[in-house]
Amino acid sequence: MSENTKVILDEKFIPTQWYNILPDMPEPLAPVINPNTGKPATADDLRPIFPMALIEQEMSQERFIPIPEPVREVYKLWRPTPLYRAKRLEKMLGTPARIYYKYEGVSPAGSHKPNTAVAQAYYNKEAGISRLSTETGAGQWGSALALAGSLFGLEVKVFMVKISYQQKPYRRSLIQAWGATVVPSPSTETNAGRAILAQDPDSTGSLGIAISEAVEEAALREDTNYALGSVLNHVLLHQTVIGEEALLAFKEMEDYPDVVIGCVGGGSNYAGLAYPFMRERLLNGKETEFIAVEPEACPTLTKGVYAYDYGDTGKMTPIMKMHTLGHTFVPPGIHAGGLRYHGMAPSLSALVKHGLIEARAYHQNAVFDAAVTFARAEGFIPAPETAHAVKAAIDEALKAKETGEEKAILFNFSGHGHFDMAAYDAYFAGKLEDYSYPEEKVQEALEHLPKVE
Amino acid sequence: MSENTKVILDEKFIPTQWYNILPDMPEPLAPVINPNTGKPATADDLRPIFPMALIEQEMSQERFIPIPEPVREVYKLWRPTPLYRAKRLEKMLGTPARIYYKYEGVSPAGSHKPNTAVAQAYYNKEAGISRLSTETGAGQWGSALALAGSLFGLEVKVFMVKISYQQKPYRRSLIQAWGATVVPSPSTETNAGRAILAQDPDSTGSLGIAISEAVEEAALREDTNYALGSVLNHVLLHQTVIGEEALLAFKEMEDYPDVVIGCVGGGSNYAGLAYPFMRERLLNGKETEFIAVEPEACPTLTKGVYAYDYGDTGKMTPIMKMHTLGHTFVPPGIHAGGLRYHGMAPSLSALVKHGLIEARAYHQNAVFDAAVTFARAEGFIPAPETAHAVKAAIDEALKAKETGEEKAILFNFSGHGHFDMAAYDAYFAGKLEDYSYPEEKVQEALEHLPKVE
Repeated sequence: MSENTKVILDEKFIPTQWYNILPDMPEPLAPVINPNTGKPATADDLRPIFPMALIEQEMSQERFIPIPEPVREVYKLWRPTPLYRAKRLEKMLGTPARIYYKYEGVSPAGSHKPNTAVAQAYYNKEAGISRLSTETGAGQWGSALALAGSLFGLEVKVFMVKISYQQKPYRRSLIQAWGATVVPSPSTETNAGRAILAQDPDSTGSLGIAISEAVEEAALREDTNYALGSVLNHVLLHQTVIGEEALLAFKEMEDYPDVVIGCVGGGSNYAGLAYPFMRERLLNGKETEFIAVEPEACPTLTKGVYAYDYGDTGKMTPIMKMHTLGHTFVPPGIHAGGLRYHGMAPSLSALVKHGLIEARAYHQNAVFDAAVTFARAEGFIPAPETAHAVKAAIDEALKAKETGEEKAILFNFSGHGHFDMAAYDAYFAGKLEDYSYPEEKVQEALEHLPKVE
Repeated sequence: MSENTKVILDEKFIPTQWYNILPDMPEPLAPVINPNTGKPATADDLRPIFPMALIEQEMSQERFIPIPEPVREVYKLWRPTPLYRAKRLEKMLGTPARIYYKYEGVSPAGSHKPNTAVAQAYYNKEAGISRLSTETGAGQWGSALALAGSLFGLEVKVFMVKISYQQKPYRRSLIQAWGATVVPSPSTETNAGRAILAQDPDSTGSLGIAISEAVEEAALREDTNYALGSVLNHVLLHQTVIGEEALLAFKEMEDYPDVVIGCVGGGSNYAGLAYPFMRERLLNGKETEFIAVEPEACPTLTKGVYAYDYGDTGKMTPIMKMHTLGHTFVPPGIHAGGLRYHGMAPSLSALVKHGLIEARAYHQNAVFDAAVTFARAEGFIPAPETAHAVKAAIDEALKAKETGEEKAILFNFSGHGHFDMAAYDAYFAGKLEDYSYPEEKVQEALEHLPKVE
């Protein structure tokens, strides 16, 4: 085993291909349904809001998809990202386990989100699009797309969930620094936003509502396409640069993970790290375990149903088979804003259903406990979303301490918490609530699931 | 020349020695004076607040000082930092110049400050000290020392300039996340603080005042030492890991800088990058130019005097020969809080006096213009302090465009601006004032310089 604290590969080792897990799934994904026809969605259904190259990726059965050179050029601004061995944390925990993390906090936006943002900006620019619309929760995705827009010369408009817009002004400022426009959602600028405000003028918004607004704007404007930060196949596959780099870095570390952990909101950061390791399990017999971690306040995988549902509240998107809490579900205002989504990526949902990925949920105080332990051992401050993965990694390491097992634990450090210090403040002040799962509300939301034959 | 966007050396190339410029100065530094005796300060004068190892480094004439292995181990958490070629910025400017930056934003605190914080924490721990006191302006230094304290098991107390404490709550939260205590300065906890509050109950504080408070606490408590984030010889030499790594990385880039640029408050980030290149100029005849950049609102090098003065407002510190605006000078509240200091490192002051370093001052709106240009080309958001260096680098690149000169420009990207988005907000809202140099106030302050034979 290497004695290194970290491995950072030279930029020539940035992957030249993304990995598409679809051909390697235990069974084909259920088709995406067009809600107007009730039939499987076609490429034409998606053309008003996506460029053809991304639609092809969305539906591709090719295992590997070449990364365009201009996208790799931009990746060089921060990739390959470091793979760390958390030696100081291991020592603090007194565990025989080896803990590794892939650190995505080095990107200009401080998270993994630019990995797909730059790819989406590139393909839209190539297709002659001049403007992108999107939604953002905590602001990680909105800032990443603003960055990508500035690097490829595209205008970007971000619908930001109102509660985050108010509570996280600095992520909003970051979006503006990269030249994008940001409006609080629900807004009066779209039919979807106005409909919500008519029902509830004080709505603090949700990711589902903001998606409806952004999709509507893209559908109605010729010059504008839509960009999504998670859930869809093409988004998840762009993130696989994380896992492909990790595979190479583990060769340098002369080790291999026994368990791969990540937090899940829509699923993209976790899929990005995990899918290349899942390929090694499915095709090459590597015996790796997989753990996806979500908040107890929005327990899509652990307490939702596996069913067809809309991706957004306004029912603008196609219907997908996935784990869902219902498209009308509005999760409580936990600080891990990026994990407040009612649905989950269809491919990741299917892997959970097939028992290939274990799902786990934690309350936010326990998650912040883990984050502070980590920060005081390793220095880096995790984003509240990332802290969910940290919590599971620490739990696994403590379990290994009990059993004496020398296992290798890998988790995705998806983003730093420098924009989330108000959440840490609330935690230290004892003001974080451990929201219980609002059972009745979910039952109510599940009654609105669309009927699909 | 290499085609790389960046070079990140393997951690085995983290320097094993710091560089001490004192033996290579054109003439010996003027002695530091004990204000009570009027005579050169001795090691014993400094013992109440510093451990012996640091006092020895402060006075050492050895060119190289070995870096203890436990300090190198901590450096491995983020070092070596990347050396970037700013290709996208060059293209945007249309310059024939090659622009490079050393990116210190990858540290857990987001700036260069931990380079010396971990060294100081280590030596204090070795000396049996259990507690450190310090001051902080914008919070970069205070957070770095909090981090170092958490990594070496030391308590840390930070006196934070009150205006920053109020305006920059997130840097304060960061200090707390790493387990340190932070109080606004002037505070009622020290004689120095109470004296200021008696005169001016509404004082928003200054770095000079906060230093007095921190030094007083260290002098009065047996278990507590003081740690300073800049100005002193030992602090500057700890930062030379930046320049030593840059020298190695330039070999990989197959290039060498014609001009080396950095922002200066007390001088440590700039000295850290520049001094190893200055050694190559002084000892090996390399023809590099050096530019130190400061704010027009606190123009220590460009409009101060070169004279003996106190390092702090309360006259607790030894008297040093340096560029100064007078120890009673309170600079206007610009957003580059780290550059609001009345004095300047003695070694850097002497190099300016000898004509080896050129000093330059900019107004803050021009500096933010440059920062936004940089962010939209290269992605990374500079801290307001760093933005001063960015502005000078862009000016040099535009000058090269006029002359057609293919020069290589290097600057220190000392920290990211993720904690400073409120400053960007103010800039975009047109609310940043370009403070003129308060001539009368400085004249008044200069009347209080101590008399030294």
